[in-house]
Amino acid sequence: MQITPELIDRMNGNSLYNTLGIRLDSASQGMARSSLKPEPGVCWPFQGQPHGGILFTLMDTTMAWAVLSQLDEGLNCATIHLDIQYTAPARGDTFSCKARVTHQTGRTVFLAAEIHDEPGGLVAAGQATFRVFKYDML
Amino acid sequence: MQITPELIDRMNGNSLYNTLGIRLDSASQGMARSSLKPEPGVCWPFQGQPHGGILFTLMDTTMAWAVLSQLDEGLNCATIHLDIQYTAPARGDTFSCKARVTHQTGRTVFLAAEIHDEPGGLVAAGQATFRVFKYDML
Amino acid sequence: MQITPELIDRMNGNSLYNTLGIRLDSASQGMARSSLKPEPGVCWPFQGQPHGGILFTLMDTTMAWAVLSQLDEGLNCATIHLDIQYTAPARGDTFSCKARVTHQTGRTVFLAAEIHDEPGGLVAAGQATFRVFKYDML
Amino acid sequence: MQITPELIDRMNGNSLYNTLGIRLDSASQGMARSSLKPEPGVCWPFQGQPHGGILFTLMDTTMAWAVLSQLDEGLNCATIHLDIQYTAPARGDTFSCKARVTHQTGRTVFLAAEIHDEPGGLVAAGQATFRVFKYDML
Repeated sequence: MQITPELIDRMNGNSLYNTLGIRLDSASQGMARSSLKPEPGVCWPFQGQPHGGILFTLMDTTMAWAVLSQLDEGLNCATIHLDIQYTAPARGDTFSCKARVTHQTGRTVFLAAEIHDEPGGLVAAGQATFRVFKYDML
Repeated sequence: MQITPELIDRMNGNSLYNTLGIRLDSASQGMARSSLKPEPGVCWPFQGQPHGGILFTLMDTTMAWAVLSQLDEGLNCATIHLDIQYTAPARGDTFSCKARVTHQTGRTVFLAAEIHDEPGGLVAAGQATFRVFKYDML
Repeated sequence: MQITPELIDRMNGNSLYNTLGIRLDSASQGMARSSLKPEPGVCWPFQGQPHGGILFTLMDTTMAWAVLSQLDEGLNCATIHLDIQYTAPARGDTFSCKARVTHQTGRTVFLAAEIHDEPGGLVAAGQATFRVFKYDML
Repeated sequence: MQITPELIDRMNGNSLYNTLGIRLDSASQGMARSSLKPEPGVCWPFQGQPHGGILFTLMDTTMAWAVLSQLDEGLNCATIHLDIQYTAPARGDTFSCKARVTHQTGRTVFLAAEIHDEPGGLVAAGQATFRVFKYDML
């Protein structure tokens, strides 16, 4: 499906993104980018640092958009597994995530993603498998 | 460190837990239990179902308490990696997570965890590695 | 399919198992057990210790038997992903692996497994996802 | 340590590599390349296709060389965890693996790797964590 700027705007108003501080920036041809400006409430136990689960959510949702960007209308996707590595403390105000589909075979999609802090340091890396199923999400 | 009922009460007031709907139930001897009554805002894109990232946060924090429960005072822990599998849709009002340390060698701790829904169905399974470092978190 | 003693005997003569030193002990109802007496050639770089890839192969094949033990005839399975943790050095002459299916949903099967040394110490833990496909392997 | 052509030649004579059909091609500055021409014995259960555990061993050993290539003398490394995804059947005579260190923090090293078949198709992707310890392996 085509992830238009209008769709992105509409999706960025969702309650999960607002609660955590995530927004989708772009998604097309199996690649997606999102950013996180973590809400104060999700910065725990270290003040000013988003919890690892928030970084995970940033990565997982960005991966989902990467998958959706190359699916036909009427299909949706779900995470089968995601392995995340935390390479450095998540310091700073903004984090960016890039995800890309590495392979799709039938209804199984493989992805890789990285999260960087503002100076460009790697704070998390991950790989995941998603499965595709019929569903009209819009 | 000893995870007393008083410490649990104090910890359960943290902003991350309140935002997502998590609370720690018990932690001792390398095992911990937590529960999730997801806040409506984090149930997206499927109404009434917590996002996978919220289940991940439940698992990751429960694992951390399992590690802390067998550490000396003045030590803290951080996730190196966590691999989570989503085995079934997360339907229902309450989810419970059990985490246990499977092995500790030096400053590296290995864990496994499962999340069940109220009827007892498995909705997520995971394994992780944490590292231990010196820090006074309290 | 039923994993009979005759089938186990026949399968234990396969070239991979002979080269590495693996044998299947039992498999039924989504659970399987195998053992490894590593051939000297695969003990590298530490003499007397099987390489981690050999332990992985023990775990992966044991998981596959666990899956097969609960499939109908004419179906086979393949690993989608396997996350293995090495908890301790693999010392000793014999290692045993236990694998169990934790959940099956449609053609996706989730598993967990552990490898122990002879004194019963945990040397590796893993979780994996397999997919089921039509194939007559026998 | 410097992975010289002489060291590579010497290492490529090891019993594990000979048994499976692996050889290291190059390793420097946190990156390494190896290739696999699988021995017939390790092609099971599908004739002509190396078992997934052999691909894993190719990946794990290539990652280890990538780590070693940026360590000082007298240090060695061990796998903490490796998550491997199998994206396509492993068909063909030769497979190549590229591994790279994505981050090192203290004694913890994070890596990513891919295995391709001869036409360049992705057959496996993985990420891993290694730890560094003092040891003179030569």
